[in-house]
Amino acid sequence: MTTYKLLLLPGDGIGPEVAREVEKVVAWFTRSGLAAFETETDLVGGAAIDAHGVPLTEAALDRAKAADAVLFGAVGGPKWATVPYTKRPEAGLLRLRKDLGLFANLRPAICYPALADASALKRELVEGLDIVIVRELTGGVYFGEPKEIVTLEDGTKRAVDTQVYTAGEIERIAAVAFDLARKRRNKVASAEKHNVMKTGVLWKEVVTRVHAERYRDVELEHVLADNCAMQLVRNPKQYDVLVTDNLFGDILSDVAAMLTGSLGMLPSASLGAVENGTRRALYEPVHGSAPDIAGQGLANPIAMIGSLAMALRYSFGLLDAADLLEGAITRTLAAGLRTRDIAGPGANAVGTAEMGDAIVREL
Amino acid sequence: MTTYKLLLLPGDGIGPEVAREVEKVVAWFTRSGLAAFETETDLVGGAAIDAHGVPLTEAALDRAKAADAVLFGAVGGPKWATVPYTKRPEAGLLRLRKDLGLFANLRPAICYPALADASALKRELVEGLDIVIVRELTGGVYFGEPKEIVTLEDGTKRAVDTQVYTAGEIERIAAVAFDLARKRRNKVASAEKHNVMKTGVLWKEVVTRVHAERYRDVELEHVLADNCAMQLVRNPKQYDVLVTDNLFGDILSDVAAMLTGSLGMLPSASLGAVENGTRRALYEPVHGSAPDIAGQGLANPIAMIGSLAMALRYSFGLLDAADLLEGAITRTLAAGLRTRDIAGPGANAVGTAEMGDAIVREL
Ligand SMILES: CC(C)[C@H](C(=O)O)[C@@H](O)C(=O)O
Ligand SMILES: CC(C)[C@H](C(=O)O)[C@@H](O)C(=O)O
Repeated sequence: MTTYKLLLLPGDGIGPEVAREVEKVVAWFTRSGLAAFETETDLVGGAAIDAHGVPLTEAALDRAKAADAVLFGAVGGPKWATVPYTKRPEAGLLRLRKDLGLFANLRPAICYPALADASALKRELVEGLDIVIVRELTGGVYFGEPKEIVTLEDGTKRAVDTQVYTAGEIERIAAVAFDLARKRRNKVASAEKHNVMKTGVLWKEVVTRVHAERYRDVELEHVLADNCAMQLVRNPKQYDVLVTDNLFGDILSDVAAMLTGSLGMLPSASLGAVENGTRRALYEPVHGSAPDIAGQGLANPIAMIGSLAMALRYSFGLLDAADLLEGAITRTLAAGLRTRDIAGPGANAVGTAEMGDAIVREL
Repeated sequence: MTTYKLLLLPGDGIGPEVAREVEKVVAWFTRSGLAAFETETDLVGGAAIDAHGVPLTEAALDRAKAADAVLFGAVGGPKWATVPYTKRPEAGLLRLRKDLGLFANLRPAICYPALADASALKRELVEGLDIVIVRELTGGVYFGEPKEIVTLEDGTKRAVDTQVYTAGEIERIAAVAFDLARKRRNKVASAEKHNVMKTGVLWKEVVTRVHAERYRDVELEHVLADNCAMQLVRNPKQYDVLVTDNLFGDILSDVAAMLTGSLGMLPSASLGAVENGTRRALYEPVHGSAPDIAGQGLANPIAMIGSLAMALRYSFGLLDAADLLEGAITRTLAAGLRTRDIAGPGANAVGTAEMGDAIVREL
């Protein structure tokens, strides 16, 4: 049996708590003989700043490159609010994305039936919701240069960020979206602001061309990013796969996640290009480090455990194991177990460890 | 009595239909002797392209500069999808904003009690909602240079947009937000992405300084734009005034508008700096040109009529007249009149002209 190398980067805030539950699940898989993992753990974000003065050490980056998959918790928090820009916790995550070439961020927004009432939206609008946001993750305004604050002659400051996209970058993320749609409901919506941005003009042009050349069987719709945000609120089920750039993807995927009422449940995958039959990959919960509840054992570990399920499926091709794990999560929820974030008002809530243990029991 | 110069720019799609209803209201005010207007009308957007080959003529721009207020309908539509970038319909609106110096865009998101059930959100989350998005409108990625598509040596294309902000631009929009909050519930939330963008770093720094120097009595909160989008869906009533940049404002204000269930009802104001006691101003509905229903007499004219009410209040200081008009809108709704967009399923809907006539009758 292949032994898969897993790098665990718990990070900050609730990251370490939810990562602990993933370790229990990994241990169960190893014990059961269904899959074999070699797990390493390292620091990222504020935790790495505290220990090493940088949000990601070269050693940790090398480990990430050598791993078959990285499981990432969350980074950031008020403790590091005054750290210099280049050393802030988020820089560790951005460096991982960039240096591992993880250009395709897949963010499923699924409304768990048991949780439809937890949504801010009316039940009928979100029940059965199952969409995926495909977000470009290594380009755009996140990485374009110049990116600086300069002091002008009159002593005042001027800040610049640069949104850049090449046709090649757009083409490869479009292909990811179309390929994914073919395995789903065969529909892609592409969101940009071509009415204001040149990157939007190129985005629309390239997506249109890729569609015409290679994916005519997939239904394609172009939508302005502002309208898309509205449509997500008005009627999210109209979408299947939604492809967009790094910054719009950041916002639209958060809106989509919040709609489901299950933010603490949603995993995501960040994938690199396929090279020699493998691809680099990082899996992380959609939620952040939630400093307000960190260390209290209240956090929901399901998004993080679901991230392992995504790794089983996308990185290791262990589809049965992935199904098994996702089934265990669904059954645990169906049995009524709820962490605080998904417990209705007045309902009893379990802690992080109890939820993790219950999922292992269901396995 | 002062005669106010009003320039009407109906534009495209449903713009001309809803503008016609505003003209009825203007005529009523003149007849009633409560206010005197000199109204001119000109073309903008696709309509101007069709007539003159450009989305805004110099003559129309001069008229806008000479007017006490501009009432703008909407621009754009599939008919002009292939027009060159610099001549597209939206360029007319962007030129007006820029050349009139309309840096402060106020977008109220109000949930009309009679319409709370039209929202996608649960009634209790939106009932009584009353927030204002203060969007910076003449800076950021909309206008920064370079803004271009270049062909690289290998023949592929590369697109660039530039997000730029000076401290001065941030300072003046922050002051607008704080001043407005003082007349409301005294709370400002400022949204940016300082964890990724240098413009976000400067934005947060300047807003913090302006607050400390001049507005310590106002409650200030900083929120990341992606989190803000989520919070708007989760619990919009936590906000009072929300200040943000041009691009985030475009998206967040659309989300906020959609939450209310009353998109066809929301006006907005774009204001310049106060100079010699007056300020340039343009008023427009938050909704777009809605080409799918244009010309059918189905559009809701209330956002456009509400834009006139905003002009009465902010540009002409005619507070009584503004109250009168807003009261007439509220009573018309309370009497049960609904255009198609706000009529519940199965309910009877009236057309654009009927709604306009009913409001004039209520006056
Ligand atoms: C932590 C932050 C840098 C990150 C981003 O903006 O991409 C986060 O919001 C996300 O969506 O993963
Ligand atoms: C029409 C378009 C250029 C405009 C914008 O992006 O600002 C619109 O979406 C708006 O919000 O007023």
